[in-house]
Amino acid sequence: MVTINRQITLAARPVGEPKESDFKLVESPIPVPGQDEFLVQVIYLSVDPYMRGRMNDRPSYAPPVQIGEVMGGSGVGRIIKSNSRRFRVGEIVSGYFGWEEYALSDGSGVQKINPELAPLSTWLGVLGMTGMTAYFGLLEICHPRAGETLVVSSSGGAVGAIVGQIAKIEGCRVIGIAGSDEKIEWLTGELGFDAAINYKTCPDLNAKLAELCPRGIDIYFDNVGGITTDAVLPLINRRARISLCGQISQYNAIEPEIGPRLFGLLIEKQARMEGFLVFQFAHKMRSAQNRMAEWLKTGKLKYRETITKGIENAPKAFIGMLRGENIGKQLVQLADEKPQSTADHGRDGASAA
Amino acid sequence: MVTINRQITLAARPVGEPKESDFKLVESPIPVPGQDEFLVQVIYLSVDPYMRGRMNDRPSYAPPVQIGEVMGGSGVGRIIKSNSRRFRVGEIVSGYFGWEEYALSDGSGVQKINPELAPLSTWLGVLGMTGMTAYFGLLEICHPRAGETLVVSSSGGAVGAIVGQIAKIEGCRVIGIAGSDEKIEWLTGELGFDAAINYKTCPDLNAKLAELCPRGIDIYFDNVGGITTDAVLPLINRRARISLCGQISQYNAIEPEIGPRLFGLLIEKQARMEGFLVFQFAHKMRSAQNRMAEWLKTGKLKYRETITKGIENAPKAFIGMLRGENIGKQLVQLADEKPQSTADHGRDGASAA
Repeated sequence: MVTINRQITLAARPVGEPKESDFKLVESPIPVPGQDEFLVQVIYLSVDPYMRGRMNDRPSYAPPVQIGEVMGGSGVGRIIKSNSRRFRVGEIVSGYFGWEEYALSDGSGVQKINPELAPLSTWLGVLGMTGMTAYFGLLEICHPRAGETLVVSSSGGAVGAIVGQIAKIEGCRVIGIAGSDEKIEWLTGELGFDAAINYKTCPDLNAKLAELCPRGIDIYFDNVGGITTDAVLPLINRRARISLCGQISQYNAIEPEIGPRLFGLLIEKQARMEGFLVFQFAHKMRSAQNRMAEWLKTGKLKYRETITKGIENAPKAFIGMLRGENIGKQLVQLADEKPQSTADHGRDGASAA
Repeated sequence: MVTINRQITLAARPVGEPKESDFKLVESPIPVPGQDEFLVQVIYLSVDPYMRGRMNDRPSYAPPVQIGEVMGGSGVGRIIKSNSRRFRVGEIVSGYFGWEEYALSDGSGVQKINPELAPLSTWLGVLGMTGMTAYFGLLEICHPRAGETLVVSSSGGAVGAIVGQIAKIEGCRVIGIAGSDEKIEWLTGELGFDAAINYKTCPDLNAKLAELCPRGIDIYFDNVGGITTDAVLPLINRRARISLCGQISQYNAIEPEIGPRLFGLLIEKQARMEGFLVFQFAHKMRSAQNRMAEWLKTGKLKYRETITKGIENAPKAFIGMLRGENIGKQLVQLADEKPQSTADHGRDGASAA
């Protein structure tokens, strides 16, 4: 019988790229749910670029993680003990559980999941924050129209790969930018992108984009920023829309990076650039999930996952994701999808009754 | 009897800041209107920052001025000869007449002006492109709400001074940034800005803005770009709106200027930044002019003009305007508002009959 909860805490604020030593694996007793609380055994943990920002001691849209505090993060798991009337043992839920094997919750921000609808992991990917970020960041910020040309950076990553596919569904010409030939092959093959560029081997990204976008760029969905954006922006069309989702190229910067001043291009092209956070579309989430689930079912939307096993490997998975080593959604699997043993499950179920 | 038309042509493409030698005063016979054409004696000529861009050999939203070509520009003038049925001798018109004393026109883009409604010069300022730029760039791009804080750069210039006043009418707290104490005094005195900063003598623009905007910045109307924008953007609030009207700090740059990468701030604050050109609101122009004329009449909107006399001084006026030497709208006056002499007028009128 497992009684130990393994967690990953922030050991030190990273300087530049995070190192494994910036994290610490700690052990503590599995917590006991209080009144109206329940205990979740986390099955999948999501590691995402935004987490890098929370490791800095600087207020942003969310407060920073404190040294010694468990790293925050979304997960999907199974309720194994419950003193809540709304949440019952055996139910599958998603929520902001943190980097730990067992999480206590009072239900805030927790969504029940029907495991028959779609694979559990997709509730952190296509049907989770990742998919919602792609969906709203493209449709609500950029309003794509059939025939328009879209460029998406970090398109081999979790959000970018979905953005490109939704843009294809909307009838756009889609050009991806990614960091490996394997990703390029996946994007232009299985995912149906019109073209994709490996920025690591492309000698002149701006020239290549100009060649692949003969009618200019109407929409730029940006996950990356930096020199990628420098290459894209001079090619935008009149009334272009730029969705700012992430600036991953800047997240490890110790000093603010400098680059060419680009705002003049936005005037010349009467273009709009908008930053967004997925939470602002929370009220539309359910209908978006239904639409995405339908596309998933009919094969219009495909996804790929990179799954790392074991909480002890979460830091490595996170660091690799920041480097672009993953294809599609990077997840950490902490437990089997099926309940572990009849004995354990019976005990947990009984103790919560 | 005057028979000579004096014009200013582009003599050389400026390298950096334009010099007077980049322009040339040329003389040619006053042109004779052909069929359906008319001749305008230009009274006021507008010199504006956007003209700097057209002096470069680089396509933008408008084609560049060619070497030896007359500089383009909006003017207000009197029709002194006409073979047009729609435009008659004696009528006052505004249009894109160029830097010359007498301009031929077929009526395209020409607007008839009722000189009883407002002073002639205001059709290049508050009621002209300048005022429309301020009006639409603020109201249509930024949607100001009462109680919000607005910062406007180059607020002692033609557009900025109007932006601030409209924002006050809309109930905003308005902070201007300008380049002389005389401008600051005018903005906070006659124009009713809540505060204004002389960026030339302010040791820390960001700190001063933070002090003057205790509730952050909801709207930034930018005419300037560069280090001014670097100081403003870190102070924007969640869902801030940034109207990109001009980037005058960059117009004389020989090499593209570099600066801190700021797009990450737009994500963190879910902010929107949009470039615009006044032409995109052409269909709403008439109602905007009526509204502005009403504000003018009731004293809610005030303006100031810097008037330089003589076509030969147009380059000097333009160069000074780029340096911020003007207060309010910079104009060049080429002729008296009243018809010159009865003899001349009679002749011109007669020849057009």
